[in-house]
Amino acid sequence: MDRSSDQLVVVIGGNAAGMSAASQLRRLKKNVPIRVFEKGRHTSFSACGFPYYIAGLVDEVDSLVARTPEEFRAKYDIDVQMEHEVLAIDTNARSVRVKDLRSGEAADHRYAQLVISTGAIPVRPKIENIEAEGVFGVQTMADILEVQCYMEKYAPQKVVIVGGGYIGLEMAEALNCHKKLDVTIVDRSQQVMGTLDADMAAGVADALRDVGITLRLGETLERFETKDGRVSAVVTDKGSLPVDMVVLGLGVRPNSRLAAEAGLRLGPKDSVWVDAWMRTSAPDVFAAGDCVQTINLVSGRPFHFAMGTMANKQGRVVGLNLAGESQLFPGALGTAVCQICSREIARTGLLEREAAELKMDYRVAKVTTYTKAGYYPEVGEMEIKLVVDAPTRRLLGAQIVGACGSAKRIDTVAVAMTMKATVDEILDFDLSYAPPFSEVWDPVQTACRRALHAL
Amino acid sequence: MDRSSDQLVVVIGGNAAGMSAASQLRRLKKNVPIRVFEKGRHTSFSACGFPYYIAGLVDEVDSLVARTPEEFRAKYDIDVQMEHEVLAIDTNARSVRVKDLRSGEAADHRYAQLVISTGAIPVRPKIENIEAEGVFGVQTMADILEVQCYMEKYAPQKVVIVGGGYIGLEMAEALNCHKKLDVTIVDRSQQVMGTLDADMAAGVADALRDVGITLRLGETLERFETKDGRVSAVVTDKGSLPVDMVVLGLGVRPNSRLAAEAGLRLGPKDSVWVDAWMRTSAPDVFAAGDCVQTINLVSGRPFHFAMGTMANKQGRVVGLNLAGESQLFPGALGTAVCQICSREIARTGLLEREAAELKMDYRVAKVTTYTKAGYYPEVGEMEIKLVVDAPTRRLLGAQIVGACGSAKRIDTVAVAMTMKATVDEILDFDLSYAPPFSEVWDPVQTACRRALHAL
Repeated sequence: MDRSSDQLVVVIGGNAAGMSAASQLRRLKKNVPIRVFEKGRHTSFSACGFPYYIAGLVDEVDSLVARTPEEFRAKYDIDVQMEHEVLAIDTNARSVRVKDLRSGEAADHRYAQLVISTGAIPVRPKIENIEAEGVFGVQTMADILEVQCYMEKYAPQKVVIVGGGYIGLEMAEALNCHKKLDVTIVDRSQQVMGTLDADMAAGVADALRDVGITLRLGETLERFETKDGRVSAVVTDKGSLPVDMVVLGLGVRPNSRLAAEAGLRLGPKDSVWVDAWMRTSAPDVFAAGDCVQTINLVSGRPFHFAMGTMANKQGRVVGLNLAGESQLFPGALGTAVCQICSREIARTGLLEREAAELKMDYRVAKVTTYTKAGYYPEVGEMEIKLVVDAPTRRLLGAQIVGACGSAKRIDTVAVAMTMKATVDEILDFDLSYAPPFSEVWDPVQTACRRALHAL
Repeated sequence: MDRSSDQLVVVIGGNAAGMSAASQLRRLKKNVPIRVFEKGRHTSFSACGFPYYIAGLVDEVDSLVARTPEEFRAKYDIDVQMEHEVLAIDTNARSVRVKDLRSGEAADHRYAQLVISTGAIPVRPKIENIEAEGVFGVQTMADILEVQCYMEKYAPQKVVIVGGGYIGLEMAEALNCHKKLDVTIVDRSQQVMGTLDADMAAGVADALRDVGITLRLGETLERFETKDGRVSAVVTDKGSLPVDMVVLGLGVRPNSRLAAEAGLRLGPKDSVWVDAWMRTSAPDVFAAGDCVQTINLVSGRPFHFAMGTMANKQGRVVGLNLAGESQLFPGALGTAVCQICSREIARTGLLEREAAELKMDYRVAKVTTYTKAGYYPEVGEMEIKLVVDAPTRRLLGAQIVGACGSAKRIDTVAVAMTMKATVDEILDFDLSYAPPFSEVWDPVQTACRRALHAL
């Protein structure tokens, strides 16, 4: 076995993208030495699962960990070094400076190839008392264990969620519906779920209010007040709310500090710039996951799209390319799906708002249709909105808000968009039908029929 | 208004295909006279809904009717003549001979354009006592009302279903799980659900046995015995079963007698031959729905695929072409989905068996995966089998058997197949993910990763 360190592949960050890259490389190259530095205590955890753990739907926090460091060592022969923080990258010396957080000692490690998979970090506005006890982000395993601990210790009753995006709404549901707490969502925007057009987001807001969640929209966070060091009030431009706990759901930004300090090229929102092979601007340095830019397959422009599916797919591509293959990653549509209270929500591609900003010649088709045959028990409504490019008759984007059984239909649209199908072609698709699953014209096709009229 | 009868469009059969054609034509041509002859008493009913009516999940049989003759008259100005049976088509005279079943009188009606949408008829073997009371097909509204009536009158306990296809299994579930009857399925094949490969059908058989349905496979029906005119036993090549009621689920064949007698060209299984514009071999005579052949988009060959989705789509195409447009109907994949007991079942394209018969160079990928994130409550297993064309790396077909949330994923495959995506391209698709809906690698993509290994 040739295990000389001049062959060493170093991975910064032991979550989805980094560990996918490492394990894909291992499948192809039995002998190359792979070392992963992870500053936290967990590898490959599902941050998407956090709200369900808080809700009590998932009993063991460990079940959110797909694979432990021990499993990576034993099964993949990957040298995973936990609680090791990379302090700097030197692309000239081809080395990383790494600090062992337990011993406090730092050392340099030379690499032959490097993978930057440092993920994203939650947006934390620099406001008064943001570091107070009881104010939580929900990004890492440590975060979520702290939330759980705090809830057990103080039994908070009044909770404010700052930000009405995916994580904010999922946490709101967990704390309101499952933990029976008094939940208020504060968002400076006039709508929740900024990844939808306002008309579609209105249905989500209704679902939140239906279960008793208070929405304070168009209201800007100014500061927190504390009592005995713990958060006691949220102060906005419109008033003050007494509170026992705050969850920040203000979105994430790429964790690109190391890359930036090493002089690597950056992309939108200071994400790490990568080419179609997931190579950064430095030789033999790849990047993947929540820290990188991704090409939007509809607009053709780079965007920042932090999603576990991308991290896994990009990680796989990096692993293949580390092994000497030439695998392209084409990009993403921005497909996302979630379940909030009684509603399933899905979106892909461009919003109407975005198509308008890009000054595209588009048409909109919006229909209310059903999740099952109209006569079938527990049939629910679903609303679907398509944005169609008039010149090419192709879909630019779609949004779905509806009852159980609605959301996964976005995949039909996502595939059609990727393969550049026209609405005319979509109408002919032989999609599945039976009364428990659909109407005889699939909702996506019903929306396409409406789009034909609009065209 | 020009309503001269030399413009008359005649439609034979007032169900999905015929009424779709008629109403699509009306949307485009306000003044053309349209007359529909329907021998039964109902238009546009959902035969797919029958098992749910028998199960008691649908209260009112009328809710299975999408639109009544009165609605077609009032809203679409379509002259729907119920209980009128077309006896013959004369393509030279451009006329149909029609019998009023109430008065018994027959008359000729000249047409400018004709639509044959005569549907399919259930296969009824010519065996002893097949006409006995208590032996039912389940094809028309009349059939299902008779079943309901018989059950109320005689309260049958022991039921034999002959044939383990979609309708047979759905009726078995309705009668066993909802009506608590003693149900046995007899099928001469060694598997249920002949539209799946045997390995996938095994999971369906398990689900049926799990709820207490008896399967007698590899057993051929020979005759029925009667007592006081009612069916009392089912006799097969392996024995005799006492019985109070029999449901025939032996599949359907195209109802093409009128077309055949008029000398029209026929296709597979004596379906009515049509070209890509849904034109028959006679001038100005179109056909659509369960009576016609359809091009299989995978094999390129015509096949008979009786499905409500096809009837509606083909009917729409006929309506457009009657109005003078030139709309093509490209064909079908044979996508089908159903829910049987605890299992969701879906299929599209070619089976492994069919690919082998066609001597194609194919590979098979089969994986067991999950309907939700592994840690999410009520996560269920799903099995997915792909058949991949080795030279082109495109999918030839897919089968899914799994828990709630499995089946509709077949649409992802159906769209990918229609748009000729390779398994490599499918791996990059930006499909939706959140813990309540999927694993981070969508099951279809997990199966494609397996397929890559097989290739």
